[in-house]
Amino acid sequence: MRHLLSTRDLSRQDAVRILDIAEDMADVATREVKKLPALRGKTVVNLFFEDSTRTRISFEAAAKRLSADVINFSAKGSSVSKGESLKDTAQTLAAIGADAVVMRHGASGAPQTLAASGWIDAGIVNAGDGTHEHPTQALLDAFTIRRRLHGDCARTRDLDGVTVTLVGDILHSRVARSNAWLLTTLGASVRLVAPPTLLPVGVSSWPVSVGYDLDEALREPGDVVMMLRIQAERMHAAFFPNAREYSRLWGLDDARLAQLGPSSIVMHPGPMNRGLEISSAAADSPASTVLEQVANGVSVRMAVLYLLLSGEREDVL
Amino acid sequence: MRHLLSTRDLSRQDAVRILDIAEDMADVATREVKKLPALRGKTVVNLFFEDSTRTRISFEAAAKRLSADVINFSAKGSSVSKGESLKDTAQTLAAIGADAVVMRHGASGAPQTLAASGWIDAGIVNAGDGTHEHPTQALLDAFTIRRRLHGDCARTRDLDGVTVTLVGDILHSRVARSNAWLLTTLGASVRLVAPPTLLPVGVSSWPVSVGYDLDEALREPGDVVMMLRIQAERMHAAFFPNAREYSRLWGLDDARLAQLGPSSIVMHPGPMNRGLEISSAAADSPASTVLEQVANGVSVRMAVLYLLLSGEREDVL
Amino acid sequence: MRHLLSTRDLSRQDAVRILDIAEDMADVATREVKKLPALRGKTVVNLFFEDSTRTRISFEAAAKRLSADVINFSAKGSSVSKGESLKDTAQTLAAIGADAVVMRHGASGAPQTLAASGWIDAGIVNAGDGTHEHPTQALLDAFTIRRRLHGDCARTRDLDGVTVTLVGDILHSRVARSNAWLLTTLGASVRLVAPPTLLPVGVSSWPVSVGYDLDEALREPGDVVMMLRIQAERMHAAFFPNAREYSRLWGLDDARLAQLGPSSIVMHPGPMNRGLEISSAAADSPASTVLEQVANGVSVRMAVLYLLLSGEREDVL
Repeated sequence: MRHLLSTRDLSRQDAVRILDIAEDMADVATREVKKLPALRGKTVVNLFFEDSTRTRISFEAAAKRLSADVINFSAKGSSVSKGESLKDTAQTLAAIGADAVVMRHGASGAPQTLAASGWIDAGIVNAGDGTHEHPTQALLDAFTIRRRLHGDCARTRDLDGVTVTLVGDILHSRVARSNAWLLTTLGASVRLVAPPTLLPVGVSSWPVSVGYDLDEALREPGDVVMMLRIQAERMHAAFFPNAREYSRLWGLDDARLAQLGPSSIVMHPGPMNRGLEISSAAADSPASTVLEQVANGVSVRMAVLYLLLSGEREDVL
Repeated sequence: MRHLLSTRDLSRQDAVRILDIAEDMADVATREVKKLPALRGKTVVNLFFEDSTRTRISFEAAAKRLSADVINFSAKGSSVSKGESLKDTAQTLAAIGADAVVMRHGASGAPQTLAASGWIDAGIVNAGDGTHEHPTQALLDAFTIRRRLHGDCARTRDLDGVTVTLVGDILHSRVARSNAWLLTTLGASVRLVAPPTLLPVGVSSWPVSVGYDLDEALREPGDVVMMLRIQAERMHAAFFPNAREYSRLWGLDDARLAQLGPSSIVMHPGPMNRGLEISSAAADSPASTVLEQVANGVSVRMAVLYLLLSGEREDVL
Repeated sequence: MRHLLSTRDLSRQDAVRILDIAEDMADVATREVKKLPALRGKTVVNLFFEDSTRTRISFEAAAKRLSADVINFSAKGSSVSKGESLKDTAQTLAAIGADAVVMRHGASGAPQTLAASGWIDAGIVNAGDGTHEHPTQALLDAFTIRRRLHGDCARTRDLDGVTVTLVGDILHSRVARSNAWLLTTLGASVRLVAPPTLLPVGVSSWPVSVGYDLDEALREPGDVVMMLRIQAERMHAAFFPNAREYSRLWGLDDARLAQLGPSSIVMHPGPMNRGLEISSAAADSPASTVLEQVANGVSVRMAVLYLLLSGEREDVL
């Protein structure tokens, strides 16, 4: 692998390879000394055009656990915010010797632009671009599902026959996009449930089924219910008139939690709006994988950085 | 030790253990290569809800000198500032594998809440919570007093019979609270001198004597005079009508400096308002320990992190 | 070397020593593992009173490649911004054990003040002070010129007989000042070309010739044309009435690029205002050294930190 830009173009073989290496990384995390020398002397730059402390520290922990040097580059207040072009920023990072660039950007497609540009030879990891993709989030979600459903057999089984329901603000969610593609690639059936105003126009081309009624969907809850964060800051009033109404119709409240099967799992990418798209009881229930998702995030990001920075890198895209 | 949350509940035995290990750490600092491998593979998160560059870099230097990885998490601009709960933040840090969380928070009691919550297994170090406590500051003060007064015998003697006068804004000072408890535990006699409006309501329950007149107090200056920072930004005009008046009545000016005995020491936790609570001559006099306090801060924080993160940890609280 | 404060007082011998060590450092950068253990256990503090992400990450990469610990200290939002004096900040950094302080400051002369103060024993590196100097930028420029013009013979030849033209906003440019002194010291002839309003009053005391007409100057372009950044944020309208006019008269546009000789090189310290002082064609032409300058910046800064922090340090100033 040379870059990780999207899950849409990730082959099943490459996705499984990342998940299997993440299993090895998760094993390391249980040891007394968690640090591996694998990426000693490599430099990982966190290039964040939007704040995202959670994602940044997850990548930072992953890189440091592999003994890489980490340089945080917040574009706020830098010459980037004075109008420096992405090209000049990228060439600067190349020139200082960045081996990988973990990039969060408000514009959909920015990491692809960077990877295709030739401005920098480093491996590019998309850490969230606009409303487009967030591939490491989907990979950690797939990893979490595999582990929860298959336990010790996680390595030998993918997601064939698994059904996953994504609920809520699909329109603004790069997490939903990345999961729709990746989970399908790994064999799962994906269903979206959302208010019609929070579904994107092109959803008919996604490899998913679509519904609008959460209660109807939960009559057959399937294996996984993944609640998405309501990003109130991105919404026009027309899409999202009323938090109480939203919660009543599309929130995972205690009543709906009770409807889930004993082996169903509840996921959320965080940070949660407790009481809005998910109740505290649901967030903290045994069915919830919220914390495992965060922990698995470090393992998956270690696997991705390892694949990009050690040994041979080929182009997967 | 499992956490370091306050000095009020710190036993004399545990306090002395920290100070003695800090002596070892101070020895390391004098070597050519100051770095110890003790905490290799451990992750220390600086979780700062308030800015405090001085405290943050002291902990960062301490952790790095022990070979720990450090992740700085400023709550400003993060999802925390968008309303994420302390619970979710804590669980996120647990999930990424934080071994210790150094926490600065504007609300008194926040680190205790975190440590008692069960949300995170990491050792919690209170780096200042509201007007409540700042235990590593008190420990470095005690360490500084022990070294100044006892020299090479510092390890074998505590603060029995030592008299310490804390002067100034007791009301808003977590440093005063932490010192009042710790220095008393270590055997010292503590006296407060402050304007009546800058004394807290419950001060009668503290193990200290109280006075209002600095000149009267300095007729018997004792071993240590510790000046506190006037935190003008926290004050209502009713408490603090006039800087010149304050300085005249409760500032350590040159005349008062001259009244101190030849072995008395002058302390200040920094940053100083030179000319307000302390004159430049006093701050820079041979009696002043201001710089030793900062240097000792790194040694004491190394000791605390070492005790929390290496080998066995028991609950001291 | 004890500090690096300016190029004006740098001897030719010391300058050449930095450039030669930077050659060694550049060799290291081409290896599989780029990290050297030379500064293990040393602490480098980046003390930035002004934001400059590019310069900060260059120093951070250099220090980490030499295995030093790096602590970033942005003065914004710190007690420094609440009025703490430079003295107290410096003494704090000394007390936490800083071995080198890389300082960016808005006031000309601040690093000299710090180095002369005795407040801190660390090596001080001026990373840009007001409109005064930016010595590592000049050193990387000299290094880049030497490499481009002399190739494998770079180590054995200085800049004797080389002609360099600095174009644009000399008035506000610390880069211009540092280059004027350093390049002259190394044997080059330096010429300034600028609008009269963008020349400093004391330029007649610089070891340079001065012109106002870029086209006239480019009739004999010499070896190096260095375009300076227009810092619009620092300018009064009286100095800089009109971007299009400026670009037409003093910008390196495509027509002027075509006038350069086949071996002339085009430099810019970055970040560039493409289309203002330099066209994109010029910035990206084979004559341009813009990216080499950034890469060489890491090597030069490694050399400076190495000279300041390893083995014997003598005072050069």
